[in-house]
Amino acid sequence: MNVSEKRPVILKIGGSVITDKDGELAARTEIINRLAEEIAKAKPTSLILVHGGGSFGHPTAQKWGIKEGYKEPAQMLGFAETHHVMTVLNGLVMDALVWHEIPAVSVAPSCGFLTENGRIKSFDCTMVERMMKMGFTPVLYGDATLDEKLGFTVLSGDQLVAYLALKFNACKVVMGVDCDGLYDADPKTDKNAKMYPHLTLKELQTVQAKMAKPTTNDVTGGMVGKVNELLPVVEKGIPVAIVNGTKASRVYRALGGEKVEGTLIEKA
Amino acid sequence: MNVSEKRPVILKIGGSVITDKDGELAARTEIINRLAEEIAKAKPTSLILVHGGGSFGHPTAQKWGIKEGYKEPAQMLGFAETHHVMTVLNGLVMDALVWHEIPAVSVAPSCGFLTENGRIKSFDCTMVERMMKMGFTPVLYGDATLDEKLGFTVLSGDQLVAYLALKFNACKVVMGVDCDGLYDADPKTDKNAKMYPHLTLKELQTVQAKMAKPTTNDVTGGMVGKVNELLPVVEKGIPVAIVNGTKASRVYRALGGEKVEGTLIEKA
Repeated sequence: MNVSEKRPVILKIGGSVITDKDGELAARTEIINRLAEEIAKAKPTSLILVHGGGSFGHPTAQKWGIKEGYKEPAQMLGFAETHHVMTVLNGLVMDALVWHEIPAVSVAPSCGFLTENGRIKSFDCTMVERMMKMGFTPVLYGDATLDEKLGFTVLSGDQLVAYLALKFNACKVVMGVDCDGLYDADPKTDKNAKMYPHLTLKELQTVQAKMAKPTTNDVTGGMVGKVNELLPVVEKGIPVAIVNGTKASRVYRALGGEKVEGTLIEKA
Repeated sequence: MNVSEKRPVILKIGGSVITDKDGELAARTEIINRLAEEIAKAKPTSLILVHGGGSFGHPTAQKWGIKEGYKEPAQMLGFAETHHVMTVLNGLVMDALVWHEIPAVSVAPSCGFLTENGRIKSFDCTMVERMMKMGFTPVLYGDATLDEKLGFTVLSGDQLVAYLALKFNACKVVMGVDCDGLYDADPKTDKNAKMYPHLTLKELQTVQAKMAKPTTNDVTGGMVGKVNELLPVVEKGIPVAIVNGTKASRVYRALGGEKVEGTLIEKA
């Protein structure tokens, strides 16, 4: 057994990278396949992969109001459906990983993570730890989970990334998103948006303060949530690289620590 | 929330029922669909479903010697592949259950069960318990699992059934198999084979003693393992019904406690 005690790299692949968010259950299998190839090529000694829900988890969870918690019996089926479509998307990811000879094992958050008002309250890490020690790559994903207060809710991939990075003292976090990095405005709608190539914790906090204004929430897209989750990770001294997962070799280079277009966030 | 404290029914669906064991990754989707319909119609107050691996898990596990434990690095991928194909089969089962409006949630054994020399050593039941209390139907399956002594192994659906039946004090166990019940010989090869319509614990022990002879192991097919696992369940006073899952309405009737062709095993 490849007994590894190395600090793992946490790689997050956004739902908007591996699915078409405008479609319904629309997986981008070519991108999934390319990313599996890049992971196999980079071959980090120890890796945990987390992916988002994109057009699988989100529309289903939204339709049934899963995030807001239990309100009526009909939602029970909605919870089951949300988890099920996420396992379908995860299945496509696992298919590509195993095909590229990565010893990846899926770890469904719904059967391990208990949240309280949407925040992770408990998770028994024993199995994930054991998998990593043996040389497996645990794969988790945003999922519908049971919640101590709400009955159930949605646990985001981003919250999982931060939790796992802190729990397993990751050596770095790589966030594969659908734009080139972290911008001062939405690059998809604002031509003058500028990307930050490097941010310190202090600078990130300033950026967050600007983002947090409710009126600009939608401008920054899914980035607000990501930054909020990542702050404690950076604070702990774990560097975070935000790179474009839809463009070839960016994730590969970030995994290998090579110079790559994107935003690198370091404590100081 | 449908807070249920009822003793659950444990339903096992054999891999030879929902797959063609002579094929490779050959699911019998019509049977899966019919069984989901029967479960939805029977609507047990509290249910745990367990299914086998059939032509998904078994050939893959066998090819890589997963059951025998870790011997060489190449098996790492075999473990990943075995778990992956099982999640694919499970996905087909979940699809049918959700389609029939059963609030079913898959619980992957590989990320929760730790075995020791192939026997369940630990499993944190909290999440499954919580799911049942809320009215969900947890769905488990035979899977590749990590093993304290062997590195990894294969955990059979039958062992899971016995474990869950004892852990949750099941009100009954229904075993859906690919023949009409428990026979004194292999009904597929022996025309004179007689089915036991009813057995007491004592009678089952006598049957087991006969089956346990190595030379007759293959004659009784997968039944030897089943009987061995089920003995402690019957001993605890939990009745076990063995019925033909490939024939319409047998599982439905057994779930509802109706008279049905098959073998009923009771303590006395």
